[in-house]
Amino acid sequence: MFLPGYDNGAARRERKGVMIGVDWGTSSLRAYRIGPDGALGGTRCLPRGILTVEPGGFAAMLEEIAGDWIAAGERRVLLSGMVGSRQGWVEAPYLPCPAGLDGLAAAAVPAPFAAAEVRVLPGLSCRDAHGVPEVMRGEETQILGAAAAIGPQEATVCLPGSHSKWAQVKGDAVLGFRTHLTGEAFAALAGHTILARMMDIRAPHHPGGFARGLARARQGGGLLHHLFGLRAAALFDEMEEAEAASCLSGLLIGHEVAAALEEGVAPPVVLIGAESLTARYGEALDAFGVPHRTAPAHAAARGLFLAAERLR
Amino acid sequence: MFLPGYDNGAARRERKGVMIGVDWGTSSLRAYRIGPDGALGGTRCLPRGILTVEPGGFAAMLEEIAGDWIAAGERRVLLSGMVGSRQGWVEAPYLPCPAGLDGLAAAAVPAPFAAAEVRVLPGLSCRDAHGVPEVMRGEETQILGAAAAIGPQEATVCLPGSHSKWAQVKGDAVLGFRTHLTGEAFAALAGHTILARMMDIRAPHHPGGFARGLARARQGGGLLHHLFGLRAAALFDEMEEAEAASCLSGLLIGHEVAAALEEGVAPPVVLIGAESLTARYGEALDAFGVPHRTAPAHAAARGLFLAAERLR
Repeated sequence: MFLPGYDNGAARRERKGVMIGVDWGTSSLRAYRIGPDGALGGTRCLPRGILTVEPGGFAAMLEEIAGDWIAAGERRVLLSGMVGSRQGWVEAPYLPCPAGLDGLAAAAVPAPFAAAEVRVLPGLSCRDAHGVPEVMRGEETQILGAAAAIGPQEATVCLPGSHSKWAQVKGDAVLGFRTHLTGEAFAALAGHTILARMMDIRAPHHPGGFARGLARARQGGGLLHHLFGLRAAALFDEMEEAEAASCLSGLLIGHEVAAALEEGVAPPVVLIGAESLTARYGEALDAFGVPHRTAPAHAAARGLFLAAERLR
Repeated sequence: MFLPGYDNGAARRERKGVMIGVDWGTSSLRAYRIGPDGALGGTRCLPRGILTVEPGGFAAMLEEIAGDWIAAGERRVLLSGMVGSRQGWVEAPYLPCPAGLDGLAAAAVPAPFAAAEVRVLPGLSCRDAHGVPEVMRGEETQILGAAAAIGPQEATVCLPGSHSKWAQVKGDAVLGFRTHLTGEAFAALAGHTILARMMDIRAPHHPGGFARGLARARQGGGLLHHLFGLRAAALFDEMEEAEAASCLSGLLIGHEVAAALEEGVAPPVVLIGAESLTARYGEALDAFGVPHRTAPAHAAARGLFLAAERLR
């Protein structure tokens, strides 16, 4: 099986060997068995994020996750994500932007493991226009994997989530990026303010409520004022309980997208992430009239494969 | 004792009788014994907000709070705040803006009480430029009390808090107002996101951190991006733990003030509230170059007295 959407023919066929790639995050991980041409031989998504690993337990956890693949002959393992943080297996210091696949590969840090050669990719850092630092771990591998399907022109890649990332990419380099605390702000505000009384964060997505939040985000008054407006609308029976959480989501995502557009993006914006979330960001970009498309699946696997090709 | 800062001589001396005023909020209350000229005869601040009152228990609670004053001859009690909400003693429906002391007095709702005449003032409502509803309960009495010291020109009154209010006032009427969920957002974000790991919300105020947050709020990128920047700065050892909570406070207050200024204010902005909070908002307004002053103390007592004068 080849990675859909990527030019698999362009993979350097002369590189011998097969590999295991793991996008190892805080609360979960995704492991890939990847063939010599970048073909995907297997995918595993497990709730074995680094927070579930006891100190000193990373080698044993890798055995548990991919021991059968290693026993079957895999000798190269490349890891990305929080596994390279201070709380991870080995620390791989942040690589400053601009940075691409060559830089990531050169900065990979070996991890002690008997049965295979294990390396950990660094995350990326940059500074915004005002000198405030920015960091990512794991997203860079997805972004550079997706960049392989974008082409040489400058592009904006958006990865929605607890800490949403908006990256500027050109060729195979990440020029810089910005993070928004959107997902975490949603959970904190929906769960721990007066808004909690009017919403159920497990309620199904409500398209009308989401669109209402997006529209509100485009009005003046500021986010903190808009948040109170949700509460007041409920007091006046102008906000149904079924739409409240989706409205808050639309409000926050709308503010995130508005801020990102103000800073400048290169459309079409390329979205990477779970379908449920990229669909929402697509609706938000539609509301702002910005073209967008979704990156091919398994961008992380593609990024890990392309970085592994550059090792040594 | 006369209310400092107000023209007590202008109080209608011919009104006979003394009164009790209570600004009765959600979690606490402030009770005032007020003489015939508006002179303040006693103040009590108690943690007896409406959430501490069992259904049907308001009369007994008033006895507990001010029974000695009533026994000593007070026969008129005027209440403002959440005590007039659906969860309070009797519901006093919101009065739409513009509204002043005459309107508030005319809309006061009697509450059943044997030993004195008890009335509950309504809160105010309005709509912002986009039709979204707004509500307040209790602040209107403080605002109209302070307005007595402002004069006939249009003014902006700001009451910082969990739900900060910015009201436009002219003469003795509230023209309209806006609420920002700033205080609640601070508690939710500081306590229930990744920011919780880097800050102690009980840390003493850190002027440098607060100023840093204010400055950040004036830069581009949006609030959700600025929130992540706090975390990233800590990762790079560019944010001391001692300043982190004050920096978040400055960031949120800065965003609130920026949004309020964008909507338009009439300086000097008049601040009402606890000194610790109005001082912070004063620093924020200074950072934006907006003149401000603090309302005389006991604005609620003044408002309750002036409204009581207009009863019947």
